[in-house]
Amino acid sequence: MFTLDPRLAADTIEVTRLPLCRVLLMDDANWPWLILVPERVGAVEIFDLSAPDRAVLIEEMARAAAILKDVTGALKINVGALGNVVRQLHVHVIARFENDPAGTAPVWGAAPRRPWKPDDAERFLEGLRTRLA
Amino acid sequence: MFTLDPRLAADTIEVTRLPLCRVLLMDDANWPWLILVPERVGAVEIFDLSAPDRAVLIEEMARAAAILKDVTGALKINVGALGNVVRQLHVHVIARFENDPAGTAPVWGAAPRRPWKPDDAERFLEGLRTRLA
Repeated sequence: MFTLDPRLAADTIEVTRLPLCRVLLMDDANWPWLILVPERVGAVEIFDLSAPDRAVLIEEMARAAAILKDVTGALKINVGALGNVVRQLHVHVIARFENDPAGTAPVWGAAPRRPWKPDDAERFLEGLRTRLA
Repeated sequence: MFTLDPRLAADTIEVTRLPLCRVLLMDDANWPWLILVPERVGAVEIFDLSAPDRAVLIEEMARAAAILKDVTGALKINVGALGNVVRQLHVHVIARFENDPAGTAPVWGAAPRRPWKPDDAERFLEGLRTRLA
């Protein structure tokens, strides 16, 4: 049975569940930052998924990216599955802005984590949930 | 007509061409590092591609990642489409190792670029081309 990696669980707030992926909000208000986790036991690399699951994954990634860009007015969306620290396959979908705390660098390690204020998170999540439903 | 971004062209060596993507080797021997560029004019985000192109893209990503892991014995493959500097849609596929120059951090900006020695690059490319063909 699929269980979410404890570190991902600790660092995020659940947004919604799509057919393949659990969608999480990274609890770091420096960037609007989603994480998509395919609910497949033992998947580490994208080639661990079946081809049909991969086809669903990239559609869910594209949909999350398009909605995130639309909702935030981002300049660019970063998408990435790195897994250097947490091995459970997960895909970052991150809204980037001109003059954001990481400049043109990747976000990981670029700024101290700044937890969302509960009211701001609730508002942001509500908009996302409506669009992702 | 599709043309490769000049910065991508300057930093890489062409490996091969797949049905959708041009496959490039980043000219940085710190990591075995491929870049897949969908040959589609004006694509910046994954949601700029058509759904059929996206389905091909994730298969080409998975195939490149699996081959790269197999050929290098990597601990983990990083996959990412960031685009903070070069806007033309391109997907990094990077082999990571225990104690590599970036540790558990992302590779971008982690170490000075170390161009491949021509003989090493040729040997590595030959193996990749055979497997990707």
